[in-house]
Amino acid sequence: MDVSFPISRLRPGMTDGIYPARCNTRTVLDHVTSKWGVLIILALAERSLRWGELHRTVQGISEKMLASTLRTLEADGFVLRESQGTVPPRVDYSLTPLGHELCERLLPLMDWIHDRADDIVG
Amino acid sequence: MDVSFPISRLRPGMTDGIYPARCNTRTVLDHVTSKWGVLIILALAERSLRWGELHRTVQGISEKMLASTLRTLEADGFVLRESQGTVPPRVDYSLTPLGHELCERLLPLMDWIHDRADDIVG
Repeated sequence: MDVSFPISRLRPGMTDGIYPARCNTRTVLDHVTSKWGVLIILALAERSLRWGELHRTVQGISEKMLASTLRTLEADGFVLRESQGTVPPRVDYSLTPLGHELCERLLPLMDWIHDRADDIVG
Repeated sequence: MDVSFPISRLRPGMTDGIYPARCNTRTVLDHVTSKWGVLIILALAERSLRWGELHRTVQGISEKMLASTLRTLEADGFVLRESQGTVPPRVDYSLTPLGHELCERLLPLMDWIHDRADDIVG
């Protein structure tokens, strides 16, 4: 039984199941819905942060994971890295306009998760 | 420099950075933003599906990962598993009302990711 047809009529992109296995949607989904990706984007929602501020704000993230996730988010165009050229070097991270667009779609989901989390796993 | 205060005023739950490291919000976030969790919830958006239908619709998922993710989503109350008691046994999976609430918050995000994915990683 082929279930892809009725779904594909309803959701754009679902031409072959729930997004084909090797499509860009899956790649971006992996990047932006990684736990750390979501938390970093939320941390930068209001203003730019320096490395140490990000590391403290996103509690529990390792330096290696922070660096790796920031590189991915920067390569995707969600996060801007700006080196201020000072001594000692200062680097600021902020959301790009694309990152703010993404953040707007993440916040309703995160607010809902936060409101319901205690009931769900409590 | 403590950055948690201005953020905590703006987002509920962010009393100590971007959600404390060991809080229920993080746990539910892990469950619902796992790549497979998102795809299974979207697959069930329109109607209930049997195991084999889910396995075909969520392209690329292993049987082990499908079973494990379904157990997590069921334990959280997002997915209902109904055994029909027929021979051979037939099991249907569907979204609970809570699962539909979650799905409503995931769809705007997924539609946006789908629309932008080719530009982002293309």
